[in-house]
Amino acid sequence: MIEGHVFIATSQDGFIARKDGSLGWLTEVSVAGEDHGYDAFIDTVDGIVMGRGTFDVVTAFDPWPYSKPVIVMSRTLRQADLSDDLKDRVEITDETPQSVMARLARRGWTKAYIDGGRAIQSFLAAGLITEMSLFRMPVLIGEGRPLFGPLEKDLRLDLVEVTSFPSGIVKTRYRPR
Amino acid sequence: MIEGHVFIATSQDGFIARKDGSLGWLTEVSVAGEDHGYDAFIDTVDGIVMGRGTFDVVTAFDPWPYSKPVIVMSRTLRQADLSDDLKDRVEITDETPQSVMARLARRGWTKAYIDGGRAIQSFLAAGLITEMSLFRMPVLIGEGRPLFGPLEKDLRLDLVEVTSFPSGIVKTRYRPR
Repeated sequence: MIEGHVFIATSQDGFIARKDGSLGWLTEVSVAGEDHGYDAFIDTVDGIVMGRGTFDVVTAFDPWPYSKPVIVMSRTLRQADLSDDLKDRVEITDETPQSVMARLARRGWTKAYIDGGRAIQSFLAAGLITEMSLFRMPVLIGEGRPLFGPLEKDLRLDLVEVTSFPSGIVKTRYRPR
Repeated sequence: MIEGHVFIATSQDGFIARKDGSLGWLTEVSVAGEDHGYDAFIDTVDGIVMGRGTFDVVTAFDPWPYSKPVIVMSRTLRQADLSDDLKDRVEITDETPQSVMARLARRGWTKAYIDGGRAIQSFLAAGLITEMSLFRMPVLIGEGRPLFGPLEKDLRLDLVEVTSFPSGIVKTRYRPR
């Protein structure tokens, strides 16, 4: 059995990045030293699954921010396109969310970190998300890449936890029904 | 001095109504008897300012839900279009947010309830919102009428309060900087 977990920050108006992918508004709102539990969360996952859009944003980070294996869901990117330093750390796949989760479960994964708007939307639609930790930043940015997207039907969530931080960030933890 | 206050519920994905204006998903999530403070809030305002879209939704309610004066911002609707029972309760205006708030202040109002997505967006952009009480419902509805919209620049918010309810609704109260 493998669980999909989300751990993501959004603006108050629901965006995870500006339209060009930039995240500077996130760090402007953050308060140095405030622990939102990211490292503790990462310690509990076997690896990260993300879409191409998120991969393009994080490849610009130096150093590479992940110590765990990363799976990138893309129909166009190929393993050979990866830079040498990423070839052992990143695996490209064009599988469906169901297929990739089944394969990762066979590999022994019990908890996958699902990251990025498109990946989160498709995994939610497929019923593959067990829990979401959402961090609402105290800022409106007006437009950008939305966390959530169209759904075939309403999706009810059970609230597990609410926490607020001195920075004004509000963390909510939900389990989709 | 007059303050603009927002008191509104949104889905987890940021919608205040479905595309057709329907609100049934709100009542499906609510728990009977849970007090979110609406009556106490209404007691503190001098009246309600809303856009045409919200007015069209609330005119379908029977009985008319407001005991306080209602101002409707519209460039096309006219006072003569109102039904007889609303003529004394509703005032149509095509003023700007600044003009209407200045006029209401001269009339003695100190606190206006700004309601509806378009009105909230234009009053926020004009710097006329003092405080927002946002109720995040534990449901994703996929698409609808968004609470927030494009902005000329980022708008920072100060978090004043967080409260959660047994239904899973999370109330956050913010003051725009």
